[in-house]
Amino acid sequence: MDCDRLNRQIEFILEIDQLKQVLRQSLLTGDRRRENDAEHSWHLCLMAVVLAEYAADEIDLFSTLKMLVIHDLVEIDAGDTFAYDTEAHADKEEREQEAAERIFNLLPSDQARELRNLWDEFERQQTPEARYAAALDRLQPMLLNFHTRGEVWRRHGIGRSQVHDYNRHMENGAPALWSYTRDMIERSVKEGILAKD
Amino acid sequence: MDCDRLNRQIEFILEIDQLKQVLRQSLLTGDRRRENDAEHSWHLCLMAVVLAEYAADEIDLFSTLKMLVIHDLVEIDAGDTFAYDTEAHADKEEREQEAAERIFNLLPSDQARELRNLWDEFERQQTPEARYAAALDRLQPMLLNFHTRGEVWRRHGIGRSQVHDYNRHMENGAPALWSYTRDMIERSVKEGILAKD
Repeated sequence: MDCDRLNRQIEFILEIDQLKQVLRQSLLTGDRRRENDAEHSWHLCLMAVVLAEYAADEIDLFSTLKMLVIHDLVEIDAGDTFAYDTEAHADKEEREQEAAERIFNLLPSDQARELRNLWDEFERQQTPEARYAAALDRLQPMLLNFHTRGEVWRRHGIGRSQVHDYNRHMENGAPALWSYTRDMIERSVKEGILAKD
Repeated sequence: MDCDRLNRQIEFILEIDQLKQVLRQSLLTGDRRRENDAEHSWHLCLMAVVLAEYAADEIDLFSTLKMLVIHDLVEIDAGDTFAYDTEAHADKEEREQEAAERIFNLLPSDQARELRNLWDEFERQQTPEARYAAALDRLQPMLLNFHTRGEVWRRHGIGRSQVHDYNRHMENGAPALWSYTRDMIERSVKEGILAKD
């Protein structure tokens, strides 16, 4: 057996344990603590299985799952960039590219290449799988925000048009889920948990 | 569009948010807080991708991923049963069967059936995918325990032979990973972080 190969794989598996400490803005519907990236990634995987029928185009669900499992790994180094923080978004790409370089290359080169390609595919948004995955990546925090009475929106002074514009690309990956999300936005405004602006 | 179907799927997606609150005994390697089931499930998915070459038999990795994503859902109702708690193991199966009945049936019946079948397959341990998934489910807490200096073993007074016997079925799903784990057990004893018994 190639011990060096297995040792590199285990090193990677230990390194990614850090993703459980990267906090997002979303609050859990239960105890209202902030969600972390590892939990979020798991949630997206199960959503991908359950909602596959709503993908805009035919997708390879296996490939989508692998993409979702690794899509936030770069945030171990680069941190989570809050959706509506335009300043932090300025150097987001650069920070994430450097992180990808370091983290994926912990693996043996064949696997580093495979996972890096999946991450690049997700970032480029040129395939049905990447667009479907990105739609889920927007739907999930919308659901958490809506079902925690918009606390995160209020805390950051986010209004309806920001939420609408930030999420509208969902239409490219899963039109029916975008339609569901638009309804949630309107209900949120009506219920007073999202500012009308 | 079938709104009732989508509503049931969303209800399920919201329900499973609870898995993030089910705590395991394992401690994270970083801040040493207890891991939860959602993070653990995500970690296993990525391990399944990276370690697939060590599966004892040829596996369908796609099916394995779906199985790992849902394998702990029943613990939303049944709770996490600590590996070495023989008393709690007495009614574990009954509690988990009831939980499976409730949780999977939140979904439309075709999807409830598909995910329930995957969970049954995992529990029965009769397929290469189920055995590989179970091997990962043992390797992951071993890695966390080893890299947090055996704190959980010490806290519960767990010794080498218990760890060995509890994990030895890994050999059926991934012999090379069992061999790696046996080395970890011996190193743990040598380094004084696991009692020799």
